[in-house]
Parts: sequence; C-alpha cells; structure tokens
Amino acid sequence: MGITKEWFIGFIEGEGNFHVALSSIKKVRPAYPFEYYPVPQFRIFLREDDLSVLEKIKEFLGFGEIYHKDTSYNRNLGFKTKDQFNFVCSSNKHLLALKSLLSDGEFFSKKKKDAEIFFKIVDIKASKKHLTPQGYNEIISLTRQLNSQMRENFKRGSTRDIYKNKAPKS
Amino acid sequence: MGITKEWFIGFIEGEGNFHVALSSIKKVRPAYPFEYYPVPQFRIFLREDDLSVLEKIKEFLGFGEIYHKDTSYNRNLGFKTKDQFNFVCSSNKHLLALKSLLSDGEFFSKKKKDAEIFFKIVDIKASKKHLTPQGYNEIISLTRQLNSQMRENFKRGSTRDIYKNKAPKS
Repeated sequence: MGITKEWFIGFIEGEGNFHVALSSIKKVRPAYPFEYYPVPQFRIFLREDDLSVLEKIKEFLGFGEIYHKDTSYNRNLGFKTKDQFNFVCSSNKHLLALKSLLSDGEFFSKKKKDAEIFFKIVDIKASKKHLTPQGYNEIISLTRQLNSQMRENFKRGSTRDIYKNKAPKS
Repeated sequence: MGITKEWFIGFIEGEGNFHVALSSIKKVRPAYPFEYYPVPQFRIFLREDDLSVLEKIKEFLGFGEIYHKDTSYNRNLGFKTKDQFNFVCSSNKHLLALKSLLSDGEFFSKKKKDAEIFFKIVDIKASKKHLTPQGYNEIISLTRQLNSQMRENFKRGSTRDIYKNKAPKS
C-alpha cells in the first residue's frame, strides 16, 4: 500500500503550508497592473533525511516539484541545521487538482481554514479575476487571513505592511 | 466521520514525538537500582488554538492526557509565543494499546524508526526488564537512537552526557 488521502491530510495538517507569495518584482510580470503579483504555493518543508516522503507525496499526487535548500550558510555560522527539501506546487492546473483531491477529505485542525482561504485565492486567480481591482483586493484581503502567512510575515517583520496596500479603485 | 488511523499516522509523522524521559530524581523512585528511570512518553505539542485537535485525538484513542503549557514567561520577555497544549500518553497500558493500534499502520517518514525504537523500550519496561542491568542498558542505548530525543538533547546541550552512563554490570 502507499500513501492514502487520509494519511496525506493528516500529514499536511502538521507539515503542509498554504502560502501566497506577493511578488513585487516588476520585471517578471511587467503587464500586471497592481503592486503585488499573487503566487499561491502549496509547500511542504522537510529535513533532507526525509526526502523520500516528499518523493512519495509527489508520486501520490502526480505533480509538484522538489527543491533542495542548502543551509550550509547557517552551518558555517555554527548552527547545526540540516539541509532541507521543499515540495512545491504552484501552477493553477495542479493547485486546482489539489483542491479537487482535498475537497471531500476531512481536516481536524486550523489548517482547514488555511486550505479554504488558499483555494479561494486559487479560484480567483484561475478565473483571471486577479487582473481586476476587485479580485486583486480580495486576494490581498484573503492572504492576510492565512495563518501560515501571518507567521511567516511575523518572522520577516516589516514586510507585514504590504498587506495594507490595496489596488486603486478603477 | 471522525479521525481515522491513517489520518492519525499522517499527523504523527509530522507532529508526534516519541520521547523517553530519563529521570534522575531519586525521591520519586527510591527503589530503582540504576541512575536514570526511563519514562517513555508519546507526545503531541500544538499551539493553544489547536486544542480541539488534541481533544479529537484523545477521543479517537480513548486515552491520554492533555496539559496546558503557559508561555507567558516568554511573552513577558517580548516573544510572541502562544500557549501550548500537550497531549501525553505515558502509562504502560496505554502505550501498549498505542503500539497495537499502530502495528499494522503504514509510516512513510523517519518517524517510523522512532516509533519502532520507542515501542521496543515500552516492551522492555512492560516486561519489567528495565529492572535488570541488561534491560536498563538496552533502554539507554535505544534512547540514544531516538531521533526526536537527539534533537531535544541537542537543544538542552549538556544533558547529552547522560547517555554515556551505563548500568553497572551485576
């Protein structure tokens, strides 16, 4: 037997990260009319010795990418960190497939709320409404409500301000 | 539907902690002949806003205790930590029931090895072999191999030395 949907949901309740990167790099999306380009990403970060779990998850889902995160910089500073591997899924197509897979699954933790908010954002982007001021503002507002997002911003500190930005009304 | 075994295993692969406390407090176990009294504990630590998950897990298992961990000390120091709730299961009876429940479940991460080592220790203690030098030494040796244990000891720093202690041969 391999990974099942129930195991996968249990695992992502602990380890899954529903994240929306708000990119301000204009070069990448020169035509995008608003300040931050939203990039929803479903992510799982594990230490390098658990790479095989990420590979099994990728096989179970049939999509996603695995990236290596070198932490030798931290080690050089004296921290005993291990390298990480990150599973990332960020294309509309695959995020919609993930939404469909999880739609009839049962969550028991706060991660359920994160998943709901995240997939609302995915839907807005998949329907191209992120190109409208209304859709953009809704994405910014929903992103603020993401639990893992808030923690990440807390860590980064000053970047929290970006959520105050709204698209100009048109 | 409620929590299932597969969900539970997925969840503990991320959040479960198979821990063996080695207690050196002689007052508590004055008759124990060796230096450290082993107390295997299955634990799950979650932030206070996920208490309901621990309650559902306790209901699913039918045993275990939930403790509140006050982190106001850290908050007073300026850290934005939230209080935690800890699910703990440490009696022989309940640890053997947990072992039985998980015995035909499938793990996909390194946590599988932790669970195997942990339940070996539980078995040694349940069979009273922790009262013999051989059993005691085996527990100390197995405890050293626990992954979550090693991380915890790394955090504590100097307490790592305790694993060098062996029971005197008799």
